[in-house]
Amino acid sequence: MRRVDRARGAGATGSQGARGVDYGQLSHPFAPQSVFSDDAIAAMHETALKVLENLGIRFLLPEARSILAAAGAVVDEDSQMVRIGRDIVAAALATAPRSFRLRAAHPRHEQVYAPGRLLFGGSGGCPNATDAVRGRRPGRLTDFEEALKLQQHFDVIHILSPSAEPQDVPVHLRHYAMMRSQMMIGTKPFFVYARGRRQVADSFEMIRLALGLDEAAWQDGVWGKTVINSNSPRLIDVPMAEGIIDFARAGQLTIITPFCLAGAMAPVTVAGALVLQHAEALACIALAQLVRPGAPVSYGGFSSNVDMKSGAPAFGTPEHLKMQIGSGQLARLIGLPWRSAAGSAGNAADVQAATENIMGLWGALMANATLTIHAAGWLEGGLTFGYEKFILDVEALQTIAELCARPEDTPAAMAYDAIAEVGPGGHFFGAQHTMERYDRAFYVPLVADLSNFGTWSEHGALTATERATAIWQRVLAEFRPHSGAGDVAERLAPFIERRTAEGGASPSDS
Amino acid sequence: MRRVDRARGAGATGSQGARGVDYGQLSHPFAPQSVFSDDAIAAMHETALKVLENLGIRFLLPEARSILAAAGAVVDEDSQMVRIGRDIVAAALATAPRSFRLRAAHPRHEQVYAPGRLLFGGSGGCPNATDAVRGRRPGRLTDFEEALKLQQHFDVIHILSPSAEPQDVPVHLRHYAMMRSQMMIGTKPFFVYARGRRQVADSFEMIRLALGLDEAAWQDGVWGKTVINSNSPRLIDVPMAEGIIDFARAGQLTIITPFCLAGAMAPVTVAGALVLQHAEALACIALAQLVRPGAPVSYGGFSSNVDMKSGAPAFGTPEHLKMQIGSGQLARLIGLPWRSAAGSAGNAADVQAATENIMGLWGALMANATLTIHAAGWLEGGLTFGYEKFILDVEALQTIAELCARPEDTPAAMAYDAIAEVGPGGHFFGAQHTMERYDRAFYVPLVADLSNFGTWSEHGALTATERATAIWQRVLAEFRPHSGAGDVAERLAPFIERRTAEGGASPSDS
Repeated sequence: MRRVDRARGAGATGSQGARGVDYGQLSHPFAPQSVFSDDAIAAMHETALKVLENLGIRFLLPEARSILAAAGAVVDEDSQMVRIGRDIVAAALATAPRSFRLRAAHPRHEQVYAPGRLLFGGSGGCPNATDAVRGRRPGRLTDFEEALKLQQHFDVIHILSPSAEPQDVPVHLRHYAMMRSQMMIGTKPFFVYARGRRQVADSFEMIRLALGLDEAAWQDGVWGKTVINSNSPRLIDVPMAEGIIDFARAGQLTIITPFCLAGAMAPVTVAGALVLQHAEALACIALAQLVRPGAPVSYGGFSSNVDMKSGAPAFGTPEHLKMQIGSGQLARLIGLPWRSAAGSAGNAADVQAATENIMGLWGALMANATLTIHAAGWLEGGLTFGYEKFILDVEALQTIAELCARPEDTPAAMAYDAIAEVGPGGHFFGAQHTMERYDRAFYVPLVADLSNFGTWSEHGALTATERATAIWQRVLAEFRPHSGAGDVAERLAPFIERRTAEGGASPSDS
Repeated sequence: MRRVDRARGAGATGSQGARGVDYGQLSHPFAPQSVFSDDAIAAMHETALKVLENLGIRFLLPEARSILAAAGAVVDEDSQMVRIGRDIVAAALATAPRSFRLRAAHPRHEQVYAPGRLLFGGSGGCPNATDAVRGRRPGRLTDFEEALKLQQHFDVIHILSPSAEPQDVPVHLRHYAMMRSQMMIGTKPFFVYARGRRQVADSFEMIRLALGLDEAAWQDGVWGKTVINSNSPRLIDVPMAEGIIDFARAGQLTIITPFCLAGAMAPVTVAGALVLQHAEALACIALAQLVRPGAPVSYGGFSSNVDMKSGAPAFGTPEHLKMQIGSGQLARLIGLPWRSAAGSAGNAADVQAATENIMGLWGALMANATLTIHAAGWLEGGLTFGYEKFILDVEALQTIAELCARPEDTPAAMAYDAIAEVGPGGHFFGAQHTMERYDRAFYVPLVADLSNFGTWSEHGALTATERATAIWQRVLAEFRPHSGAGDVAERLAPFIERRTAEGGASPSDS
């Protein structure tokens, strides 16, 4: 098995290793919190089971209906509705794994995916990209690759996400470019879009080729992951069901994420939106477990509210946070690791967008989400990936990562001798205790400027958003491909050439 | 007793009463968290006691030394050092009240000050003010008054704070103007600056006059509060000690707040800074309780770190949050309500300043701080009160306030019937369940703009900071004095006239 770049660190890290804080491997610092009573959570679970049993879910893919029917679900082929009994759900929850390892091209970037772990992902699924230099534009492959470099650079981003859609690459060839770029640039856990069976098969093959995985190594763990969004309410479309089935068969990860916007695709109440989310997630988890008991799945919730004036999705709102925390309670009830999301609805990398994202990040902390995606760079409710926004959000993520390391609690840290050494009204700048520790005592900000108003004004009175431009520019300018990139390119080239000659693969190709 | 405006609400509220959320009366939604083990916290308390016993605190005020000496503390009059035994501290902690009521001109604005309660205060102690229309300037009485109007307007601000120092009023007359403006504009709990005995006496008298309190009513509760900052390390200056003594004698509240900047006025470690903070706080609490057992005191911590390059104080950093949470643990150990602070070091109402303040707000939530001041409008580490910043921070505070109300958990909220009503792939906009609730289902943002990029661009592509200008302008334009304002002015006029004729009171007047 040829894993890239095993011997040395892959690119720059953005970590603060000297301080003993490993941004790359985090566990939750705070106990999970609740917004519902245990009784209410149990009632919501029960209501979701009733939705599945009595009302059912519409699966557009015949194979999905067949699999569920074979397990005893009641299927109406005319309406494509599948009513799923609680026994099927219970069996699925019994086989779904509580913990598994996300494999990565670089072992340092592998992650245990389990309750209590804290993983962050950047923006996913943005059709546009924007920055202060080049403006807002439809996503291009260069934007997609730059976003990957930013994600790879900062240790506090734990997985790779498709931040900007490369719209300049035709759809039937796009997955070749996206997978190739990921593996040329990144050594963190890869994503795969579930856009049809042939694209998924191609993508899996590219991972095996690029990493030199034989069948045993491929089966050894989770090398690819995808997000499954139900079409709420109660509809699973063809590519999503195909994705669940194909990923489960291959032992790869589906992150089951209903997108339940309260007041639009879901009931207007927090509890009602969560009941719908829970029912849809359980249905998809059941399908995955029927395909392959033990297949890695993640519970997921991306429920929030809509703005009742515009119908636009809102993020970082009180209702969003309550749904995050309630989702965490539901995930704990069924014992599964789970994915949440932050993000912002704001149209610019401004205080609104910062507030929305940071509130969502804290919601994810209170909810003990295993994975929080859209945690950096997500503007306009996901329509645009922002370069400055990404940098600004990383500052928040690094601050949170620092909280995962407890402060030193030795007698030396309590500093009685230093306090004795410095007289009343004196200062500790020159104290021995300070001199021994000052260079690693504090987090060094990425964007924050702590100079006074005069100095800050003399340097141009730049806002944090303005300062962020030079930071992403520097990261991109200094980015160096990992040592295995040339090797990856060489191994992928014949496959991409052949498949391109064969006409590539459209999302509808099976 | 003539309390102003008892019959009707005082001014606009900024609350979302229709949704059943009372921003004006909050309790913590989350369980207090820890960054230190219980053993470490006990060791830090013990180390602080050792600091007090063996190293001592320097009290510049002879009366403070006498009071402590009379209780058995070891005083060295040459060095002004006071070594305080643990028996004195234990006795103080036995008499310090765990809970008391902050009285206010309007009963609706009274607050219970006790562990578990959640109170926010705006910026305090800023010499400058800034806004997008008039720029940055030294604080004037008009700025001070406008800041009071903003604080009074929003229900999520629970106490009044001196946000901008009225530097255009001479120091010996300034407290008359500040107290008069507060009582003309505000009906929330008042602040009093501890700037010398005569100013404190004048301020107390003005509260009694304005509210028409006889001696019994005055003694009935806490009508005035002040912040006591020690001059860390281990120094209590004359006006601070006078403040502790005079407020305790009058049964008014001292909020004891060492300002321990790790690496500057305190040890560079989180644990060391907290040990110093704790020792200084305990010394001041002991003095207050010796003056009058049972006098209302608040434990307080405003420890953070300095930027080691510039020496500037930092806020919202990981170290700040760890010190907040550790302070909460120390406060819980001694059983007292306590005050924390948020705020920002940023020079503009930008993403840096937003990130810093929101991180500090969440630190206060994790720490279960009773009162969090500097929670809105605090720029430049407190050197400037920002109007736009205040509005932007209120959005964050209102979001947090909303989290204090749990979501509805009835069967109706769980929405089984609504889910049954809406078919797969449909939407809930027109569902009966939605129609019955949509107008009060979600928080309505103050600043956030949820329109799409096109609409937002057509409306000028304003950032949140730019939008905030119109909001504070509207609040100030629409602000109406409370119904008792004329009465207050009339009752205070003769006193102010007489005291002005007598020469006012300088901070050194006793």
